[in-house]
Amino acid sequence: MSIRTGRRARHSPDTKTPLRSAAYQQLRHPFAPQQVFSEDGVANIHAMALRALAELGIKILLPEARQIFAKAGALVDEDTQMVRIGADLVSEALRTSPRSIRMRAANPAREQMFEPGAMMFSPGSGCPNTIDALRGRRPGNLESYQETLKLVQSFDIIHILGPSAEPQDIAPHLRHYDLMRSQMCLSDKPLFIYARGRAQVSESLEMIALAHGLDEAEMRNGSWAYSVINTNSPRQIDIPMAMGIIDMARAGQLSIMTPFCLAGAMAPITISGALVLQHAEALAAITLAQLAAPGAPVAYGGFASNVDMKSGSPAFGTPAHMKLTIGSGQLARYIGLPWRSAAGAASNTADMQAAGENHMGLWAAMQANATLTIHSAGWLEGGLSFGYEKFINDVEGLQQLAEMCSPVPEDTESLGWDALQDVDPGGHFFATQHTMDRYRDAFYEPLVADLSNHGAWIDAGSKTSTQRATDVWQQVLQDYVPPASAKGVADRLADYIETRTKAGGAPPTDG
Amino acid sequence: MSIRTGRRARHSPDTKTPLRSAAYQQLRHPFAPQQVFSEDGVANIHAMALRALAELGIKILLPEARQIFAKAGALVDEDTQMVRIGADLVSEALRTSPRSIRMRAANPAREQMFEPGAMMFSPGSGCPNTIDALRGRRPGNLESYQETLKLVQSFDIIHILGPSAEPQDIAPHLRHYDLMRSQMCLSDKPLFIYARGRAQVSESLEMIALAHGLDEAEMRNGSWAYSVINTNSPRQIDIPMAMGIIDMARAGQLSIMTPFCLAGAMAPITISGALVLQHAEALAAITLAQLAAPGAPVAYGGFASNVDMKSGSPAFGTPAHMKLTIGSGQLARYIGLPWRSAAGAASNTADMQAAGENHMGLWAAMQANATLTIHSAGWLEGGLSFGYEKFINDVEGLQQLAEMCSPVPEDTESLGWDALQDVDPGGHFFATQHTMDRYRDAFYEPLVADLSNHGAWIDAGSKTSTQRATDVWQQVLQDYVPPASAKGVADRLADYIETRTKAGGAPPTDG
Repeated sequence: MSIRTGRRARHSPDTKTPLRSAAYQQLRHPFAPQQVFSEDGVANIHAMALRALAELGIKILLPEARQIFAKAGALVDEDTQMVRIGADLVSEALRTSPRSIRMRAANPAREQMFEPGAMMFSPGSGCPNTIDALRGRRPGNLESYQETLKLVQSFDIIHILGPSAEPQDIAPHLRHYDLMRSQMCLSDKPLFIYARGRAQVSESLEMIALAHGLDEAEMRNGSWAYSVINTNSPRQIDIPMAMGIIDMARAGQLSIMTPFCLAGAMAPITISGALVLQHAEALAAITLAQLAAPGAPVAYGGFASNVDMKSGSPAFGTPAHMKLTIGSGQLARYIGLPWRSAAGAASNTADMQAAGENHMGLWAAMQANATLTIHSAGWLEGGLSFGYEKFINDVEGLQQLAEMCSPVPEDTESLGWDALQDVDPGGHFFATQHTMDRYRDAFYEPLVADLSNHGAWIDAGSKTSTQRATDVWQQVLQDYVPPASAKGVADRLADYIETRTKAGGAPPTDG
Repeated sequence: MSIRTGRRARHSPDTKTPLRSAAYQQLRHPFAPQQVFSEDGVANIHAMALRALAELGIKILLPEARQIFAKAGALVDEDTQMVRIGADLVSEALRTSPRSIRMRAANPAREQMFEPGAMMFSPGSGCPNTIDALRGRRPGNLESYQETLKLVQSFDIIHILGPSAEPQDIAPHLRHYDLMRSQMCLSDKPLFIYARGRAQVSESLEMIALAHGLDEAEMRNGSWAYSVINTNSPRQIDIPMAMGIIDMARAGQLSIMTPFCLAGAMAPITISGALVLQHAEALAAITLAQLAAPGAPVAYGGFASNVDMKSGSPAFGTPAHMKLTIGSGQLARYIGLPWRSAAGAASNTADMQAAGENHMGLWAAMQANATLTIHSAGWLEGGLSFGYEKFINDVEGLQQLAEMCSPVPEDTESLGWDALQDVDPGGHFFATQHTMDRYRDAFYEPLVADLSNHGAWIDAGSKTSTQRATDVWQQVLQDYVPPASAKGVADRLADYIETRTKAGGAPPTDG
C-alpha cells in the first residue's frame, strides 16, 4: 500500500505516478512569527544600528561604492575608507526597496515570489568538501558539485539553488563558467551567482540570457539569479562584495545582504548586541544597492550564531542561534523586507547532533517566518562539508515541516461523525468508509525514516537512517533525468565559454 | 575555559561548582501558542465530542464508575455498559476542575505548578525494554529501571518521574513496591503511580506518606504523585483505569487523562476526527474524576499520532503528530485546563531519524504550549525501548530548548555600544570588556555535542554523538549521588513492604 514517494514524480517515464502529489513548490508560513524582543527592544536595536552607521560608520573598500555614498550625502573619509551613513539615506533606501520580488526560473512552475510570508529553502552552500559513506571526505570538485545539483534538483522542497559544493578542480578564473553551465544544464530552479568580481557577475548574467534566450527586458522582468552578500563583520564591506551589490542591483538581480555575525567573535557577545551589528551592516548594504539602482531587488539577511567560547569554533543550532534567528525575523519585519535565515550544523558527521542542530535551525527559522532558509540540507562541519547522507535526512525534515504547514481540514466530513458511529468501543477504524476514502493520501510517507517494528528492522539489516540514506541518494542519482529546460543549454553556451576561456577567463577580484 | 556543565551541579563534593547554574527547574512558555484550527474549528470539535458522549456514549467497564455516572444523571445501559453523558455534566466537571495544581516533591525546590503556561518534561516511559551500546537490547529489569531513574534524577530538565523502564523481573503483584521505593530512594522529583488496580494505587500512596512522614492533610496539600489514564480508544475505559480515575481523584492526586489516538487505527484517519475522539474520551475521564471528587486535580491529555498505513505501525514525530499536538493544545486552552503532550520516536536506534522525530515532537509541544511533555527523552521503537544513548542526546535538545526560552536582555548595556566602538572594522570582539564581562556564561555549553573542528574530532576518535553519549551516561551513573530526601526512606518502607509481600502483595486488576 505505497501511498506516494516523498520526492516529486521524476521524469523517467517508467516512474509510477505517486497517488499523492507533493505540493512543496510554493509554500507559505501558516504560523504567526514568534518574538524574543519587545517592540521597544526591536526599535532600540534598529535605532542603535542607525546610530552606528551615522556615528561610527562602515569601512567600504571599493572607491566606486564610496563615491556613490558621497554623492548621496554620506560622510566619506577617503583616507580611512570609512563611510558614515545618515538615517535619512537608510530610510530612503528602505522606501525604495521592493517588498516582493519575482524569482524567475527556467521552469515557470518553479518561480517564487520572494516576499514576506513565503517559505523557501536552499541547500547547504559554500562547502569546500563533500562527504558520503562510499567515498569519504574529499575536496569538492566539478563531479561532486554536479552530483549535489542533481540531488537538489530532485526534491521540490529545495526551492532555490546554492553553491552546494565548491568545484575546486576548476581554476578560479574559469569556475563561474562551470557553475552557471552546471546549474542550467542540471536544474530548472532559480540560480545562484557568486559575487567574485565585476567580470564574473556580468558574464554569469550573460550566460543566463544566452542559455534561456532572454532579451534585456526579460532579464529584468524579475530576478533570474541571486547572490549572497557577506559583509566582513564587523563594519566592513570588501571590494568584490561592494561590486556585487552594485552590479546585481543595476542588473535587477537579487542580492541578499547577509552579515555573518558570530556573537563573541566578529560580533558583540550578546544577542541584542550581535543583532545591532548585523542590522547596521545589512542596512548599509541595502542602502548601497538602492543608491546604485533605486528599486533594486534586495533582501535582508541574518545568519548569526555564537562561537564555542572554549575552542572559538562557530556553533550552529544552539540556543543563541535560535534566539538570533527569531530576533532577526523581528528586525526584518520592522523594516518590512523579505529575509533569509540559515539552519546548518557544526557536527562533523551525519549523527544525532547533526540532526538536532539542523532541526533547531529549521524550527527557529520557521518560527521567525524566514522567507528563505539557507543551508537547510546537507551542511556539516559548520559549512566545511556537504554531506550526502545528511542531505537526505535533512530533506526528510524539510518535507515533514512543509507537510505540517499544510491546512488541516475542519469541515464536517473531516470531523468524521459517521466513522465514530461506525466503530464499536474498543474497535478500530481501518475498515471504515471514512478511512478507505482517505488512506492513500492521509499521511506523509517517509523518504528515509523506517517505521517498521524492531524485528522487521533487524531483518532488514539494522541500518541507521544515515546508512539507509546512502541507498537513497544513490537511487536518486541513478533516477535523475535533466529537466526539459536544460535541452540545448550546453550548445548555446559552448561558443561563449570557449571564447571567454581562450581570452583568459575572468579572474576573481581580491580584497 | 569551561563555562559550566550542561547538567546540574552534582552532589559529589569534588565536583567543581559550575560558573553558570542551569536554571531548568521551573520553566514557563515564552512563545505564544500556535494553531492549526480556526476558532470555529476548535468549537466544532468540542461540540462534536460532546455530541459523541451524549448520543453515542462511552463504554465503561467498571460498575462503580457507571453507578457514579448514573447517580449524576448520565444515561447508563448496564447490559451494554454504555454510558451517555450529557453536556451539562461535562460542563460542570470542567467548572470544578482546578486550573492550577501544586505538584509536590520530596525536594521543595523541585515542586511544580502544573498549570497553563508551565513547561515540564518527563522521560520516555512505559518501556518494556532498555537498550544501550554496551549491553544491547534487553528486557527491562529492576537494575535498568533504577539506572534510568538515576539518569533522570541527574538532569534538572527532566522535571517529573515516569515509569521509564518496566522492571519485568519483579512479579506484577509486588512490582509497585519496587517502583515506589526506587523512585523515592533514588530521586526527589514528583512521583508516578501506575493505575493497575485499587490495591496498588492505595498502597503506593501509603508508601509515599510513610516514606516522607506525611499526614493525611499534607498528602492532600497538593499532588505528590500523578498517574496517566489511557482510555482504550475508541470510546472505552477499562476497569483499572476507571479505578485509577476514582481513587486518584478521591486521594487528591493528579490524573492525566490521555487517550492514545492513532489516526487511521484506533481513531478516525483525519486530524480533526481523531481529535474529536480524543477530546470526547478525555472529557469523559475528567467528568468521572470530578463526579468522584469535585475539585480533584486532573489534566487534559493528548497523545495522538498516525499509523504508517503500509505497516500499521505507530509513527511519531510525523506531520500528523505535530498537527494533532498543536490542535490538542487548542482544545486544552478551549477548556482552560493544563495538559500533557508527548514527543517520542518510532526509530529502532539512536540515529538521525530518532533525533528528528524527537525534535519534531518537542517543538510541536512547545508551539502548542504543552504543560507537560512526556516521552521527551530516551523513547525508542514507539516506546518499546528506553535508549540510554538517545536519552543523553534528547536531554541535550531539551536543555537547548529551555535555554532558548530564557529571556533575551535588551537593556542598553546588552546592546553593546561600547563594544561596537572598541572594535575596528574587520577586527574581533574576543578581547573587549563587553566580551570579557560575559564570556563565562554567555552560551549554553553542550552535554554531548562536539563543536570541535574536523581535525580535532578525528583526533578524538571520530565518534558520533551516539557513541559519545555512551561515555556520558556512564559518567553520569558513576557520579550519581542519592538526593538528601532519600535518606532513611528504605528503612521507613522496609517493614511495610515486607508485611505486604508476605501477605501476598497486590495483584494488578485485569480488564
